[in-house]
Amino acid sequence: MSGDSGAGRLPATIEDPLDAVMRSAVAASEEVRGTTSPNPPVGCVILDTEGQVAGTGATQPPGGPHAEVVALRAAGTRAAGGTAVVTLEPCVHTGRTGACTDALRQAGVARVVYAVADPSPRAGGGAAVLREAGLEVRGGMLAEEVARGPLRAWLHAVHTGRPHVTWKYAATLDGRSAAADGTSQWISSELSRAEAHRLRERMDAIIVGTGTVVTDNPHLTARGADGELTLRRPLRVVVGDRNIPADSRVLDPVAETLLLPGDSPESVLAALGDRGVVDVLLEGGPSLAGAFLAAGCIDRVLAYIAPSLLGSGPAALGDAGVASISQAWRLRIEETTMSGADVRISAVPAD
Amino acid sequence: MSGDSGAGRLPATIEDPLDAVMRSAVAASEEVRGTTSPNPPVGCVILDTEGQVAGTGATQPPGGPHAEVVALRAAGTRAAGGTAVVTLEPCVHTGRTGACTDALRQAGVARVVYAVADPSPRAGGGAAVLREAGLEVRGGMLAEEVARGPLRAWLHAVHTGRPHVTWKYAATLDGRSAAADGTSQWISSELSRAEAHRLRERMDAIIVGTGTVVTDNPHLTARGADGELTLRRPLRVVVGDRNIPADSRVLDPVAETLLLPGDSPESVLAALGDRGVVDVLLEGGPSLAGAFLAAGCIDRVLAYIAPSLLGSGPAALGDAGVASISQAWRLRIEETTMSGADVRISAVPAD
Repeated sequence: MSGDSGAGRLPATIEDPLDAVMRSAVAASEEVRGTTSPNPPVGCVILDTEGQVAGTGATQPPGGPHAEVVALRAAGTRAAGGTAVVTLEPCVHTGRTGACTDALRQAGVARVVYAVADPSPRAGGGAAVLREAGLEVRGGMLAEEVARGPLRAWLHAVHTGRPHVTWKYAATLDGRSAAADGTSQWISSELSRAEAHRLRERMDAIIVGTGTVVTDNPHLTARGADGELTLRRPLRVVVGDRNIPADSRVLDPVAETLLLPGDSPESVLAALGDRGVVDVLLEGGPSLAGAFLAAGCIDRVLAYIAPSLLGSGPAALGDAGVASISQAWRLRIEETTMSGADVRISAVPAD
Repeated sequence: MSGDSGAGRLPATIEDPLDAVMRSAVAASEEVRGTTSPNPPVGCVILDTEGQVAGTGATQPPGGPHAEVVALRAAGTRAAGGTAVVTLEPCVHTGRTGACTDALRQAGVARVVYAVADPSPRAGGGAAVLREAGLEVRGGMLAEEVARGPLRAWLHAVHTGRPHVTWKYAATLDGRSAAADGTSQWISSELSRAEAHRLRERMDAIIVGTGTVVTDNPHLTARGADGELTLRRPLRVVVGDRNIPADSRVLDPVAETLLLPGDSPESVLAALGDRGVVDVLLEGGPSLAGAFLAAGCIDRVLAYIAPSLLGSGPAALGDAGVASISQAWRLRIEETTMSGADVRISAVPAD
């Protein structure tokens, strides 16, 4: 009907066959998010000389083997002459485990393809070491996707020296987190609540304020579709100076809980960084979120906007040190998707 | 890479060749939105016996010819034996203009395809009249698309007896329409502001409260990309009991302005309905929007959510009679799109 005949058009992108292998490595790394800190969640796929998958692996908990070693073990002798596809440049650092560059050389791998260069001073430089040893090395494949995805929090922590903070909140279209009488149950859809549990499960720690504990008495655990607690239980962190009841659900023994008096975001994050925490979920309330925002300590905003209007009741965000419109905290929207009946908006601080 | 080989799949939809013609009729009708009330903005395309476009037309301002007549005039003798594709069932009503069913018969049109059935008691029933006269008649083509699009406000007015109200607002991600000191300039992106002008241009009337006039002194006109006033100038309506300054921009002579004391949404809409207004844009402020929402007088919400956070300042929506979460005004999201850097959410009351 239109004048667009399709003639002479080129495909929008020409897909590298290794892209799909890298995506498998990414998927493997996603499986271990929340279990590897302070190490990065890395995924690795070993291809044999025919280009067939010989082994897949992901970083094991601290002290355990890195992704390359897990994948090499799975591949066995098929790794010789093959290709390692890995989401992060292999490390040269011998710590609790051996250097991955050594493991790759010893297995006889001929070629290494990685996504993101390792910026850490101790472990970086693996590509050069491997090239020196005669391997073919190619970096940067799907680098942006991996850097924004599974390695995001770890890269942030390497660059800034503090954990990455995602502020997650649910609010109505008019920005309210509860009605005038304080009721707030099920503002967001069932699907969004299920997503929130999957998100918690992949985090190292979940922060709330003492006010939220007093008001909402959250459990701060992750539950599966069956309502059962998941195996992974992120550190629960309660920040602030209000007394919380002795029978608060966060004080039960199913997961660790850290009580941090005061409300300085910088000192909270320093304390968490010292414990090896890399990826943090900030769940509220409005005062704590405002304090983190004012301190420049929010790295990503994940808003679940429910399709409802209240017109009164507490706002999702409290005082963040903004008096005039020119001081507004400017964000850039990364992605907008539907989550059941809700709109899910992911945004990051504008450059 | 996935198991989806594409083999054996059917196209998602099989497009009727007349769909594209109906879309041309829709496009013609969009051109006249805001100029036809209280009549519906209808579009019509006449195809000759070969299926070629012989004429296109849209409803002229009240007293002028309907879409079918405009299109038939353009088609001339080529209409004989041809097909009329029209967004609304042709009317049987002889008012200021003749019945469209008569015009189609007199032109010798053999077939009529329409989108939406005419629900109005005076003008409906055209399909039966045409079939009786021996024409081939088919209704319902793209009916939902047209009913949600160009004919939405008119259908609403026919069904409810009052104008259709779109509440449009711009707010930050945390639901603020201004900072704590009242500053609010350019909360939304340049593209969203340009869209707002195109939206105004297609409306019969734009409502604000006296408070907004005192605070923001809006002009409530539509301007093109060049900053010039557009030819179409919707009625400006100021609702409320505050005194507005004599030099308020809404009081200038470039467009009509109606001042309505009180703030009962029902009486405001009754007064506008009496003037033939069908499609209304409610632009604020928060108190007036809350009053309209509480009265059940908002039929669509169009939110421009800016990617910024304030943490204080006036909310976009004021008291809407909601005390507890169970009383929240529930909406259903129709569409979410990006508008420059903003997220544009269109929502309607949930069924």
